[in-house]
Amino acid sequence: MGRPRKRAFPVENVRRYLEPGPILLLTSAHDGERDVMTLGWHTVMEFSPSLVGCVISRANHSHHLVRSSSQCVLNLPGEALLDTAVRIGNCSGSERDKFAEFGLNARAGSKVAAPRLLDCHACFECQLFDDALVERYDFFIFEVVAAQAIPGPPPRTFHYRGEGEFMLSGESVDRRALFEPWML
Amino acid sequence: MGRPRKRAFPVENVRRYLEPGPILLLTSAHDGERDVMTLGWHTVMEFSPSLVGCVISRANHSHHLVRSSSQCVLNLPGEALLDTAVRIGNCSGSERDKFAEFGLNARAGSKVAAPRLLDCHACFECQLFDDALVERYDFFIFEVVAAQAIPGPPPRTFHYRGEGEFMLSGESVDRRALFEPWML
Repeated sequence: MGRPRKRAFPVENVRRYLEPGPILLLTSAHDGERDVMTLGWHTVMEFSPSLVGCVISRANHSHHLVRSSSQCVLNLPGEALLDTAVRIGNCSGSERDKFAEFGLNARAGSKVAAPRLLDCHACFECQLFDDALVERYDFFIFEVVAAQAIPGPPPRTFHYRGEGEFMLSGESVDRRALFEPWML
Repeated sequence: MGRPRKRAFPVENVRRYLEPGPILLLTSAHDGERDVMTLGWHTVMEFSPSLVGCVISRANHSHHLVRSSSQCVLNLPGEALLDTAVRIGNCSGSERDKFAEFGLNARAGSKVAAPRLLDCHACFECQLFDDALVERYDFFIFEVVAAQAIPGPPPRTFHYRGEGEFMLSGESVDRRALFEPWML
């Protein structure tokens, strides 16, 4: 059996996956090089255009690939990739090909050249939108230009608490009845 | 029995509570007015100084109080406050005193004038650090100048998925053994 097939997902709905604050795997490529890093510092910033802000420290090899290519993919891993994500976050791509080392299946994005991780639940292809705060804070604002996700409920995601401790996502609760119609 | 007593918490460790991406209650005050709003778009940006970036839409009354006072408090609610947080997010403080309406117990911060919500698990007192992206994106960068939290494990937090659906935080898992010492 192959992987569940992802389908295109409306970019203005990326909050459905990103707003809860999961750890992401950020992939990038430039000039024959590629890298993957573990990302926990990100926030949704706008629905349309679909904007996401990410802190990508210049201490990461990925920072330079993103800076040079103005692109990346934000990949949403489920629980099965927790240990891999921790290992990716604890070594540098300047010394190795993490894709080979961690057995990551990847394919170029549909709208960006950066690789999508096929074993992640969803992929958000990003184009740099505003670099005004890159120099001061390593803060990149991306526009999500294409998104794909496995249809159905989100996976069990993992969220970093620092000090080596993660929170796994728990149950879903529905509070639609308490919302004003225009807030949904 | 009173509430569990909060203790001062090192500001460089706020990621322990904020990085997992919980819904927060943002409180502010200016010129005799006060307000509280529900906040889901935030990210940690730096350890020291302790920086947090937040999107506070100008459609929110709180935006103007934060803009005028250059301060706010980020309050971390536990599961018991889920319905209250949804209700707070579905009405405007320009027409009412949400503190009275929702029975919120509050006291001024130790370092800022904005109110702390006493029934929240943790309070992070914030001073505006950089408003470079406020005009373009309603994005405020705050420095956490004081923090208090109830000692012990974090509460069960709630995380917004959009469309009226929340994810409750689930179990904690420890992966310290997979970290390089300098990454902890």
